[in-house]
Amino acid sequence: MIDAGSTLAALRARKPLVHNITNYVVMNETANAILALGALPVMAHAREEVEEMVGLAGALVLNMGTLDAPWVESMLLAGRAAADRGVPIVLDPVGAGATRYRTETAKRLLDELEVTVLRGNAGEIATLVGVQAEVRGVESIDAGGEAADLARTAARSLGVVASVTGAVDHVSDGERVVAIANGHPLLASITGTGCMSTAVTGCFLAAREDPLEAAAEALVAFGTAGEDAAAGAAGPGTFHARLYDALAALAPEDLSARAKVELR
Amino acid sequence: MIDAGSTLAALRARKPLVHNITNYVVMNETANAILALGALPVMAHAREEVEEMVGLAGALVLNMGTLDAPWVESMLLAGRAAADRGVPIVLDPVGAGATRYRTETAKRLLDELEVTVLRGNAGEIATLVGVQAEVRGVESIDAGGEAADLARTAARSLGVVASVTGAVDHVSDGERVVAIANGHPLLASITGTGCMSTAVTGCFLAAREDPLEAAAEALVAFGTAGEDAAAGAAGPGTFHARLYDALAALAPEDLSARAKVELR
Amino acid sequence: MIDAGSTLAALRARKPLVHNITNYVVMNETANAILALGALPVMAHAREEVEEMVGLAGALVLNMGTLDAPWVESMLLAGRAAADRGVPIVLDPVGAGATRYRTETAKRLLDELEVTVLRGNAGEIATLVGVQAEVRGVESIDAGGEAADLARTAARSLGVVASVTGAVDHVSDGERVVAIANGHPLLASITGTGCMSTAVTGCFLAAREDPLEAAAEALVAFGTAGEDAAAGAAGPGTFHARLYDALAALAPEDLSARAKVELR
Repeated sequence: MIDAGSTLAALRARKPLVHNITNYVVMNETANAILALGALPVMAHAREEVEEMVGLAGALVLNMGTLDAPWVESMLLAGRAAADRGVPIVLDPVGAGATRYRTETAKRLLDELEVTVLRGNAGEIATLVGVQAEVRGVESIDAGGEAADLARTAARSLGVVASVTGAVDHVSDGERVVAIANGHPLLASITGTGCMSTAVTGCFLAAREDPLEAAAEALVAFGTAGEDAAAGAAGPGTFHARLYDALAALAPEDLSARAKVELR
Repeated sequence: MIDAGSTLAALRARKPLVHNITNYVVMNETANAILALGALPVMAHAREEVEEMVGLAGALVLNMGTLDAPWVESMLLAGRAAADRGVPIVLDPVGAGATRYRTETAKRLLDELEVTVLRGNAGEIATLVGVQAEVRGVESIDAGGEAADLARTAARSLGVVASVTGAVDHVSDGERVVAIANGHPLLASITGTGCMSTAVTGCFLAAREDPLEAAAEALVAFGTAGEDAAAGAAGPGTFHARLYDALAALAPEDLSARAKVELR
Repeated sequence: MIDAGSTLAALRARKPLVHNITNYVVMNETANAILALGALPVMAHAREEVEEMVGLAGALVLNMGTLDAPWVESMLLAGRAAADRGVPIVLDPVGAGATRYRTETAKRLLDELEVTVLRGNAGEIATLVGVQAEVRGVESIDAGGEAADLARTAARSLGVVASVTGAVDHVSDGERVVAIANGHPLLASITGTGCMSTAVTGCFLAAREDPLEAAAEALVAFGTAGEDAAAGAAGPGTFHARLYDALAALAPEDLSARAKVELR
């Protein structure tokens, strides 16, 4: 059962460490989102320490936003150690479809690691399941197809929980599909909100066993914070500052009632 | 003719992808500035993908702020691919003059690439044309000389459009010199506003053929956003947040009338 | 004598360059903190230039937040050059205790360099003096022991000024211990405030000869800015923006009177 409020309460009580190997653009922003939500972020990419660090963590967040060869190697090392220790992995295939390198790296990570949740926009996910999609750089352009179908297909063919975000988000484990309508257009006006939703997914995975429910609840929480931040924002910059306020102020006792969730 | 308003309108209609190989300090901030203005940012530095990525872009932004050897190599790869495909390049020689490595790297990039616009402060540009200048670290210290002359000399001797920013900005193609007085002192109170003006120059280059006019219009737009952000800011932090609001709120229909531009 | 106000006035008059080799998460934030305070930040890590850059600087800030092998090598190069030129070094051993790599790197930097001030949380400092401590990732968890004793012990055994921050900060040169109670709980709600306090310590070291006094004054200034930023903040995001406003607005003439300092 999707119950974002009680998972958020559990997360804040437990304060899990969330290990991120992520891109340079959003390191500060995702760390602050994790902290505002109530978990503990750590950013660590050195091959000398990623295996040890992930052993301390409740979840591993892999994000390809500014990838290069040494970082991919660290993602593989950390990811294998995560599997050994039962630490769930969320992968953000930023820009898959934009260049061959990104597409191939995303496929390789999916292939060699036990990815729990794949969180991307429709273009990225479509690329990875071989459906036609328009991708320009790393910004989200909606795929034409049905997002619910895309999520279900991706979950089945890639063996993950697929979390496809957009105006309405769709999360699927291959059987169930959950549509989440929380959110606000201003979330698309700043860079890194996709990456933040991935990081928040990591937090929820660290606090909730069922990955479909954790992934859906994370998007409820993040989208609701976006709604709160938008009230009174004068544009993307003030919205950005207010987004952390809103994440910190999320009230577990109201959150589940505010969820705009539908089973499809 | 300098007409920042119509170029901004064209840019927002076209939403060009702007490929940045830039420094760690300002990656998030320049991505957000590009997005707030109305274009699509991508940050990508891996040698495996920069040539392919720049082929998707309307402009390439090279910024030396935290350079090291692999990044310089990627800048060269991307820059050569840009030339092959007619993609304009804007170079920000951050800290040229501070260390030999920065000065030599800036000269090498100017030498080996077809740089369209060189955007720097007076100290950096003076260093690159061999004029005496005081440079401390990477922060702008005004050169004593005449900035208009400096811009014209740099344009002629380096074969670029030179965009020399300061209290008043000067842009020259070697013949014409445009002085732009838009802006606000608070822009100097936060790090990365020089880098943002370079990124915004990239956006305008992607929407306007004439590089002198594009570079001047970019500074009109960015300076005007600075003026708007300053109204009501309580210091550098709130100014910073408001700067993205102001970039997003720039009205094409007013922008050209607000331009403080003079041909010298 | 601890007199944060006059050191701040001297710092703003002199505008020293502060050279940072720091982590990706906080590069922008620490640069903006240094700039807001009134000094000039430079971030530079390339082995080709760190020795030359540190020669221009009034202080060197080494921060292990996202360390890997090439960055450690650059820290060593820059640190040795700093010693040759009498440039004070402040080291932030981010995450010491979390992984062997971080603990060993911190010890190596302390061993091979003449570190002037070691600024960390209780868990990190306890790890480095061999006292039992709980460390989770890189976030501060208070060590059980007496922080004043920990600071004195660390200073003696490591041959540094030890600056142990927490709800109350303790700075010691092995003889004197200064307790600083300035600050606000919201400082713990955003990432990088520890790193900022290290960077601000670098600024004060560049303006004040006695490292114990410089380190204590830095924490008075930073903590006071935190108090000012908290007034009117609605959460971590708006607090973050207001923190730069507050650093820029710190009034030297009031600062010493606002210091909550006690000699222990």
